[in-house]
Amino acid sequence: MQLPSTTLSQAVEALSTLPGVGKRSALRFALHLLKQPDSEALHLSESIRKLVTDVHYCHICHCISDTDICPICASPKRVQSIVCVVENVQDVMAIENTQQYRGLYHVLGGVISPIDGVGIRDLNIESLLHRIQQGHPAPVEEVILALPTTMEGDTTNYYLNKQLRPLGVKVTTIARGIAIGDNLEYADEITLGRSIVNRIPFD
Amino acid sequence: MQLPSTTLSQAVEALSTLPGVGKRSALRFALHLLKQPDSEALHLSESIRKLVTDVHYCHICHCISDTDICPICASPKRVQSIVCVVENVQDVMAIENTQQYRGLYHVLGGVISPIDGVGIRDLNIESLLHRIQQGHPAPVEEVILALPTTMEGDTTNYYLNKQLRPLGVKVTTIARGIAIGDNLEYADEITLGRSIVNRIPFD
Repeated sequence: MQLPSTTLSQAVEALSTLPGVGKRSALRFALHLLKQPDSEALHLSESIRKLVTDVHYCHICHCISDTDICPICASPKRVQSIVCVVENVQDVMAIENTQQYRGLYHVLGGVISPIDGVGIRDLNIESLLHRIQQGHPAPVEEVILALPTTMEGDTTNYYLNKQLRPLGVKVTTIARGIAIGDNLEYADEITLGRSIVNRIPFD
Repeated sequence: MQLPSTTLSQAVEALSTLPGVGKRSALRFALHLLKQPDSEALHLSESIRKLVTDVHYCHICHCISDTDICPICASPKRVQSIVCVVENVQDVMAIENTQQYRGLYHVLGGVISPIDGVGIRDLNIESLLHRIQQGHPAPVEEVILALPTTMEGDTTNYYLNKQLRPLGVKVTTIARGIAIGDNLEYADEITLGRSIVNRIPFD
């Protein structure tokens, strides 16, 4: 695709680095920005700059935050003795949206994946172990592993369990099974099989 | 969706103004930018800023350009007496990609659409008429209307034809018909009907 201007093609090039955005979408974005009042594009430019220069991560749970300690970690209303380990910030938001969890979080920042070059040292595992060993900022009684059900997630679960057990903490994992509203006939065999093996008392 | 940081939610807000980008995609973009080295997001921010501050439009055809006169208008190899009227810059690029056209362009910047509040004065029509009346930068013999086949495109075609005819210029429109590779049975009735009415000699 031959673009009529270098300014335009540089913007298209930069926009197409966004995930799932190809050259055509990037061009559509760029031409849209040109059609709007300049202030709108400048606002977008400024927001992106501020995003990387002003962003903070919570010192305790590594979630994105405006402050050194995020509102969840700082809240006296949250149960301080339960820590839910998740892959990323989206997962924190997804669990928060359920309004079913009142404990704290720990954001790993990924899962162990040798194929993508993500090892133990690239994840926030050291600080998780430290947090439990030190009992700081609060003693932890239970760690809930809420990682994705992939090979990488399972590997990370396995590794974390091996590290956490000796610390005398209870390790649990979120329930796997048939999703609410799903038909049994369309469920995959592994999920259905596990849901029978791990059946729970009816009450 | 409750975001854990105002910096993040401002960036998501700004990114979701891009066409076809919802809150979820915008969040994915923002978190992707945070995962990359800062330089990448800063480069994107800078490219967007430069896009609106540095962009030029060709004084003759209104196409995006790095210079006051775009390379197409400035090229001595192009046929100066034919002007193809298109809606926007993408259309110029689409026609250029066919490598079948050697004339010049005139970018209207839209089509007449009262429902969107786009009137005659919002489009580059005045400068087109001026270009033909003055015969500057070159005398124009033919104007090809290459606008979309929508009600708005047809309205604009009709209006332009009425304005252009008295100026003694030949007005043509791009051929409408069955697309190359299409089966007749799947073509819509209007296109197929028109393609029979406007049949061309076989040679």
